[in-house]
Amino acid sequence: SFKLAWGCNGDKSAQHKHEIVSFERGNITTAERSSKQILLKWESQPQTVLILTKPNSKSVRSLCVEMVRWLKEEKRIDIFVEPRVKIELLTESSNFSFVHSWENDDEIKLLHTKVDLVVTLGGDGTVLWAASMFKGPVPPFIPFSLGSLGFMTPFQSENYREYLDTILKGPISITLRHRLQCHVIRDSAKDDQDMEEPILVLNEVTIDRGISAYLTYLECYCDNSFVTCVQGDGLIISTTSGSTAYSLAAGGSMVHPQVPGILFTPICPHSLSFRPLILPEYVTLRVQVPFNSRGQAWASFDGKDRMQLAPGDALLCSMAPWPVPTACQVDSTNDFLRSIHEGLHWNLRKTQSFDGPRD
Amino acid sequence: SFKLAWGCNGDKSAQHKHEIVSFERGNITTAERSSKQILLKWESQPQTVLILTKPNSKSVRSLCVEMVRWLKEEKRIDIFVEPRVKIELLTESSNFSFVHSWENDDEIKLLHTKVDLVVTLGGDGTVLWAASMFKGPVPPFIPFSLGSLGFMTPFQSENYREYLDTILKGPISITLRHRLQCHVIRDSAKDDQDMEEPILVLNEVTIDRGISAYLTYLECYCDNSFVTCVQGDGLIISTTSGSTAYSLAAGGSMVHPQVPGILFTPICPHSLSFRPLILPEYVTLRVQVPFNSRGQAWASFDGKDRMQLAPGDALLCSMAPWPVPTACQVDSTNDFLRSIHEGLHWNLRKTQSFDGPRD
Amino acid sequence: SFKLAWGCNGDKSAQHKHEIVSFERGNITTAERSSKQILLKWESQPQTVLILTKPNSKSVRSLCVEMVRWLKEEKRIDIFVEPRVKIELLTESSNFSFVHSWENDDEIKLLHTKVDLVVTLGGDGTVLWAASMFKGPVPPFIPFSLGSLGFMTPFQSENYREYLDTILKGPISITLRHRLQCHVIRDSAKDDQDMEEPILVLNEVTIDRGISAYLTYLECYCDNSFVTCVQGDGLIISTTSGSTAYSLAAGGSMVHPQVPGILFTPICPHSLSFRPLILPEYVTLRVQVPFNSRGQAWASFDGKDRMQLAPGDALLCSMAPWPVPTACQVDSTNDFLRSIHEGLHWNLRKTQSFDGPRD
Amino acid sequence: SFKLAWGCNGDKSAQHKHEIVSFERGNITTAERSSKQILLKWESQPQTVLILTKPNSKSVRSLCVEMVRWLKEEKRIDIFVEPRVKIELLTESSNFSFVHSWENDDEIKLLHTKVDLVVTLGGDGTVLWAASMFKGPVPPFIPFSLGSLGFMTPFQSENYREYLDTILKGPISITLRHRLQCHVIRDSAKDDQDMEEPILVLNEVTIDRGISAYLTYLECYCDNSFVTCVQGDGLIISTTSGSTAYSLAAGGSMVHPQVPGILFTPICPHSLSFRPLILPEYVTLRVQVPFNSRGQAWASFDGKDRMQLAPGDALLCSMAPWPVPTACQVDSTNDFLRSIHEGLHWNLRKTQSFDGPRD
Repeated sequence: SFKLAWGCNGDKSAQHKHEIVSFERGNITTAERSSKQILLKWESQPQTVLILTKPNSKSVRSLCVEMVRWLKEEKRIDIFVEPRVKIELLTESSNFSFVHSWENDDEIKLLHTKVDLVVTLGGDGTVLWAASMFKGPVPPFIPFSLGSLGFMTPFQSENYREYLDTILKGPISITLRHRLQCHVIRDSAKDDQDMEEPILVLNEVTIDRGISAYLTYLECYCDNSFVTCVQGDGLIISTTSGSTAYSLAAGGSMVHPQVPGILFTPICPHSLSFRPLILPEYVTLRVQVPFNSRGQAWASFDGKDRMQLAPGDALLCSMAPWPVPTACQVDSTNDFLRSIHEGLHWNLRKTQSFDGPRD
Repeated sequence: SFKLAWGCNGDKSAQHKHEIVSFERGNITTAERSSKQILLKWESQPQTVLILTKPNSKSVRSLCVEMVRWLKEEKRIDIFVEPRVKIELLTESSNFSFVHSWENDDEIKLLHTKVDLVVTLGGDGTVLWAASMFKGPVPPFIPFSLGSLGFMTPFQSENYREYLDTILKGPISITLRHRLQCHVIRDSAKDDQDMEEPILVLNEVTIDRGISAYLTYLECYCDNSFVTCVQGDGLIISTTSGSTAYSLAAGGSMVHPQVPGILFTPICPHSLSFRPLILPEYVTLRVQVPFNSRGQAWASFDGKDRMQLAPGDALLCSMAPWPVPTACQVDSTNDFLRSIHEGLHWNLRKTQSFDGPRD
Repeated sequence: SFKLAWGCNGDKSAQHKHEIVSFERGNITTAERSSKQILLKWESQPQTVLILTKPNSKSVRSLCVEMVRWLKEEKRIDIFVEPRVKIELLTESSNFSFVHSWENDDEIKLLHTKVDLVVTLGGDGTVLWAASMFKGPVPPFIPFSLGSLGFMTPFQSENYREYLDTILKGPISITLRHRLQCHVIRDSAKDDQDMEEPILVLNEVTIDRGISAYLTYLECYCDNSFVTCVQGDGLIISTTSGSTAYSLAAGGSMVHPQVPGILFTPICPHSLSFRPLILPEYVTLRVQVPFNSRGQAWASFDGKDRMQLAPGDALLCSMAPWPVPTACQVDSTNDFLRSIHEGLHWNLRKTQSFDGPRD
Repeated sequence: SFKLAWGCNGDKSAQHKHEIVSFERGNITTAERSSKQILLKWESQPQTVLILTKPNSKSVRSLCVEMVRWLKEEKRIDIFVEPRVKIELLTESSNFSFVHSWENDDEIKLLHTKVDLVVTLGGDGTVLWAASMFKGPVPPFIPFSLGSLGFMTPFQSENYREYLDTILKGPISITLRHRLQCHVIRDSAKDDQDMEEPILVLNEVTIDRGISAYLTYLECYCDNSFVTCVQGDGLIISTTSGSTAYSLAAGGSMVHPQVPGILFTPICPHSLSFRPLILPEYVTLRVQVPFNSRGQAWASFDGKDRMQLAPGDALLCSMAPWPVPTACQVDSTNDFLRSIHEGLHWNLRKTQSFDGPRD
């Protein structure tokens, strides 16, 4: 099975560190697909861990305190946390002055060159938010759940010592979760399309009618071929990781996160024959709000950052070059099956005392 | 709320006894609809009970022995059973010689004039089979379940004494379950349509392609208006009681059994836009196998009695005049809601520790 | 078949005029159900017609002018229109001074005692709006479509003379379209529930999350039995007339408008097992926003009048006593089947040159 | 974009000829995925064409005659046909004695070393059947449709000269359609599993209950992890090419044929929560009929070759190493979108004169 090298020797070797993501995308995804399970092997022992946490939770806060202490004292690991968490730690005890943080957004942009590993404490929402901090290469994520396990959080926090012990040694089974990069184009007829930085989503981007009384009317194109008009409550463009989130609620299929593809799922379409579509990962989708559109349209990204689209605006969407590698508890397939059994009660049936047709 | 009188004074007063079913259909269904819950009140104390049981089950057999003894000794009730069960009881003890049975089909046809109440021991399959014994008026059914409760079996067998005590006193909350009457017309172009006796179904009649490699192609009419052609694996015509059975598996909605209507649900239709349809109870449906049909079609009735339909054959289907009154444990709505919660895990969700979008 | 008498002899005989609607609800709905087609027969020749029109449409406006003239000159019919339309007509010609209108809302409340017939010019949206003007008894509606036919507008405007000729003679085949009456209860824990006037909907009431990032969490009760919690984008409570509108987009079945029932259809539910439900017309539904609800909820009525529901608020919903009788072009079933074929392309398939499995 | 070389220099260079398929599967599929469109370039001019036709069709037969003549006379191409077709051609004219055919199954196994190109005349069924002739490497397919275009037949037969002209020059846009290889394991508990030759399917393998009155009860495993039990009418395991065939009728999503994945779609499952699943192409699925199964199960392969599975039997299923390269008319995405628009009326809506909510 395929092996990805990943290790850290400080800032100078930033390129080496992100070997998997400095490959061309085609190559990475090859690796992912041609083997049953991707393994990540440390080239050198990981030295720095970033811990990102769900706010406003006492249990998360006390777990964080404990884990920071353990990682530092038992494992000699350097720790990064958010500024807010650093203050919380220092409130706890001045002994936590060894913990690193950052002061401004520019430092966030360099985080991936400083940390070898990201630990998240919370649920799937915390993973989504943590991923959004990395606009470029993403270090491996170790997502811990504090309650029941989520779709992206396969590690139970009670056993964090055993899990982290194993992970720091490596190798780690990972799921490479692809992200979509989205560009909002204002007044798409105009010539000057200064591209802003793309918005990256790990689950999905949606375009909906918000509280407008009018249905959306969205013209959709795939690599410049006309796909269809979405007349209804809206449209979800989802990764396969996102197939168990909003797309599922709207009627989409459940897709193993290692299947490369983009889900095109309508929300309450005003048509009997609008079945969800799954497109190859290599396409570029364009969703256009027509110039004569009566209703408004709203885009939102992983359920956040709602932004209004005016008539004439468009959304461009394609697979981002940098996936999010998340550690598996068993392997990609086992973790996925567990999550849909436990999290969604997929095909849970009453054990039947069905007496069948009587003869 | 509406009250139905029902009681028994022997064969002479057969008409009186079946008051609810001797009404015109329109009137009966009125009763059902215009009130929240139909109550059945005994005009005279019930004297005779028919017990129908699932075969080949030790627990059913021993419950039957016990219940017969209790009804006779404690309640002075006359008992009818199937010939097979009578033999089983006599094998148990010659004391059971008081138990009545029948000797031929003609006596079955008169059963509804002899018994005041039908007790079924088994599951939904036993209720379906018991209902099929009554081609005309149907006495009230008290369906006991031996395992987990079913859609039509709301009474737990452990507590049969308490339940029967209450029921024999009355009044009883009942669900009036409508049935469909089906006629198979051979070579429908021919003039002479000697109608055979209709086949009655409590859940559904299906027409499918069996093991044919060709899709069905069924022309459907509603009161002589063309409805559609069903090209696919087949078609289900279901009562609302049957809405939680095969129709549900094929994608139909769940319908409260007191809603008067007929479900028209395709099985794996070869068309994106074939959404299930619900038609009024008063229509007559006609499903025609075209003369030039390449594949075969098979009809089956409540999952049984498969019968081949040749090109040119047709199936006629309308609401039968005699519904099956089944006793409720609480009332129609509570029993229905309990059955879809327990039996189907309807809208069962994991209690979410969902942390939502993180701000 | 059942016959409804309906006629007009001026204000004094208001009661007589609305015979069908002065019955108890149970009786009305009986009539509807026990016969294949309801016929409305004029007791006396209709004398007064209310014409309601879609605004801002030139073609509607010129049709209205023509129809008013024809009804007055050829048929000696008295005409009512909205104040806005009266102004439009007078702008056209001072000859239209014979046209009646009203001056305030109190007069609207008495409209049903003054008019024998309501003609609508527009589409389904115009019918919805026209129906909302009648909070009590509703005179028969003759809905004309100016473009393609809608679900409730079976009359093509080109042939209005022939259609109105026939209708003014009677008898008329009608579809009795039931409405839901909705009450919003503010702070439902409080004791004093001053009921405001109910809001009547012909299609549906929806409760959704609007632009909230949090899923709805709606507790639903049916006649005080707990039904389920709706966690998702929202919930649609729909009449069977509304089954081809928003409920359909959300995955509900198509239901013939003469089937008495209430559709309970979730919008993008956060659960795999949330199949739509159809409940009897006689139930009262209660949808409660929990006191600890994090997100907002918004109610809207036939797609309009959005109103925010705060934690603790509730919506009560039951069948209204006064249905909307709409005239049929052929009959209820034919009109319904035509509308789903033409309007929704229901089960429209490519004629297959399918060569099947090759032997 | 990626280029595949393919050409023919006679039997000796068989290996060279099938360059794309002699690669490791991972590499091939890489090519497919990392580029927007696979192009096939002839290394040497194609010399031999196999024409496979739908039987019992006059129009196919006369097109075949014409095409054979044209290819021979205008293009100097050697022709292979089935023995049956060779007889038909010789009946037409003894001039067709130049046409090649085969005499036994062993020669069929070598066909791929003799022909450079396969032309099919018929519909999708003819392509399925033609593909089943190639158990190993598959030459490029040029599928012509005689009626309306199918999902795999993008070439209209009227213009065959222009199309073949272009194709014989190359390069050709192709869709690499993956196949599933299936093994039926009899009495899977036994030790000796002599693997027979696998059965290859281009669309899907299904396991259903045939005409059994009992639901299937199929235990499913993915790479030895338990997936679920399928209780219902059956199960479809489909390629993405097959996503627009039976899987679609059973409720599966539509998947672009270039998305690598395996569809796991239940047929009428006896569970509300059984949403279809899409798994990575690299997994091995095992479907087991339990030893205590009451009902029968039947497997069928691309809709044919029904074969009974006894309790204890199992079906193994994984991606086959040799895909079927089918020529595109425009490119993979355009051809796919055209086929779902034209063939399935996907999201076809009435152009709305919808007048929206009236203000």
